[in-house]
Amino acid sequence: MSKTTAWVAHAAGQKLVREEIDLGPIGADDVEVQVEHCGICHSDISVLKNEWGMSQYPAVLGHEVVGRVVAIGSAVKSVSVGQRVGIGWNSASCMHCRQCMSGDHQLCSQAQPTIIGHRGGFAGLVRSHWAWTLPIPEGLDHAEAGPLLCGGITVFNPIAMYAQPTSRVGIVGIGGLGHMGVKFAKAYGCDVTAFTSSESKFDEARSFGAHHVVSSRNSNAIKSLAGTLDLLVVTVNVPMDWDALITTLAPKGRLHIVGAVLEPMALSIVSLIFGQKCVSSSPTGSPVDMSDMLEFAARQKVTPQTEHYPMSRINEAFQRLEEGKARYRIVLDADF
Amino acid sequence: MSKTTAWVAHAAGQKLVREEIDLGPIGADDVEVQVEHCGICHSDISVLKNEWGMSQYPAVLGHEVVGRVVAIGSAVKSVSVGQRVGIGWNSASCMHCRQCMSGDHQLCSQAQPTIIGHRGGFAGLVRSHWAWTLPIPEGLDHAEAGPLLCGGITVFNPIAMYAQPTSRVGIVGIGGLGHMGVKFAKAYGCDVTAFTSSESKFDEARSFGAHHVVSSRNSNAIKSLAGTLDLLVVTVNVPMDWDALITTLAPKGRLHIVGAVLEPMALSIVSLIFGQKCVSSSPTGSPVDMSDMLEFAARQKVTPQTEHYPMSRINEAFQRLEEGKARYRIVLDADF
Repeated sequence: MSKTTAWVAHAAGQKLVREEIDLGPIGADDVEVQVEHCGICHSDISVLKNEWGMSQYPAVLGHEVVGRVVAIGSAVKSVSVGQRVGIGWNSASCMHCRQCMSGDHQLCSQAQPTIIGHRGGFAGLVRSHWAWTLPIPEGLDHAEAGPLLCGGITVFNPIAMYAQPTSRVGIVGIGGLGHMGVKFAKAYGCDVTAFTSSESKFDEARSFGAHHVVSSRNSNAIKSLAGTLDLLVVTVNVPMDWDALITTLAPKGRLHIVGAVLEPMALSIVSLIFGQKCVSSSPTGSPVDMSDMLEFAARQKVTPQTEHYPMSRINEAFQRLEEGKARYRIVLDADF
Repeated sequence: MSKTTAWVAHAAGQKLVREEIDLGPIGADDVEVQVEHCGICHSDISVLKNEWGMSQYPAVLGHEVVGRVVAIGSAVKSVSVGQRVGIGWNSASCMHCRQCMSGDHQLCSQAQPTIIGHRGGFAGLVRSHWAWTLPIPEGLDHAEAGPLLCGGITVFNPIAMYAQPTSRVGIVGIGGLGHMGVKFAKAYGCDVTAFTSSESKFDEARSFGAHHVVSSRNSNAIKSLAGTLDLLVVTVNVPMDWDALITTLAPKGRLHIVGAVLEPMALSIVSLIFGQKCVSSSPTGSPVDMSDMLEFAARQKVTPQTEHYPMSRINEAFQRLEEGKARYRIVLDADF
């Protein structure tokens, strides 16, 4: 089971080409998954273009994988052959450091990204450590579940960590992550305000569950929210009017940024002090966080709004995502 | 009991002059306190000089008050005449808003600062709402307790909110606030690292309880702490090398700023995301926080290191504090 077909990037920004690859012998802790569906995430584009300076080529991208277990290593007990599973941003961690032993495997300094120095899910087969291979619950539409494994957990986790059903939650940016953030916050029972720069998304934001929709370009509308939000999750990766966003926070409120904004944020400390506010960030989530998220999504029927492409049209799909045309998340269906 | 002698500022930055003032009739919720001791806080200087643009003149400064109750309004049940009490940054709050009703009175938008639009403690008598008039526990040296009421609670509260006895805590700036921060973190059971730009304070920082002392000007020493601190409390009010300080945080670590740094902080969001870190701030604490802090200080024998002046030498004392010569907190003893 070691050879498979994959879509391979040979250098930064190049088109993906279909090739045979060899995954080598399976490790004792590895799970081998036959890919059925794999979402495209903005970070696939970032790694393809080496925007973070850590890409390794040849690269096989794709880290929102759903598929069936076809082989397991000798030490794997958590999943079995034939089971439907998902794989997200990480495909392994050291399992013995303080972070792994605390259940915070996503913070392991040795965590292995699925698409950097490891072959990802735009392929017939993909492998992952058992700890990072999550069973897809019955009742969750598996064809739609892929984007939950990275984008979904990224927005679910701050809600699970910091919101309660009584909270007022804002979601900034109604795109791949943000639209799932609105759905999760609604399902969590929160009062939900969507911030989007695109008026064309107002109605859809409401259909995802937003109780209120605000133009992120309308500073008066933002001002009218002063002091009201307990948690504001920012999903965009461009600089914002941070002071204006902090003003929308209630006392003890939190501005939580999950977009990898590369430009430094000019943060006014005085804007935090009197309201006892904070600014925080987080990456994806732990295996247990992901398991909880998948169970919650199954129970509450939270799935992303997707566009499906056969994987053979992967380059066209990447272009559509990069042009900002995807509404709201693209899933590739394996057609090898 | 309405007339008293006070040290009064008539305009920004002017010397304080001794005058008779009239506090008017006592309100139903008011406690009238005969001042025995009152600490000088940096924010007394900030308000004297109108650095925050919110001062009101004539001003009576002083908000680290310890004294005896000499009169109470008709609705006061929490303290009685003759009792020794303390008053800090706030002397009233609305008592009915969401924040007050949640026990977060320090976040009340109507909170009344003791020294802005209200006569403070550099006087024979000072008044405060009963909720903000805290009994001084037996066993706490009342002559030294004044600085706990503002500076003390400001550094104690982040430790109480965010640290555990197993935490590694850093305190940046070993001055009026920071030296109390070191003492409180040590008493809390934490591993304590003191950061100071002044090598002359290394030994004293250790004597306050720091297990480790680092020069905040030595970037190599700071780098050697990478990934180790759970909580880093910044007590200075000048811009720092924030990225370097964030690097010292362990995964899930918190940079907490209690100095009113007016310059915007150039915060790298990427420096927060992978370690799931946060930046936060807070003002003083609630009446219950202050009560807990005073009980803890009494039990653990935590008092500031002080220099005492008779209140009649108040202008000299202000000058000494402003020149950075105070080691570490000045208390004025009433001598009217």
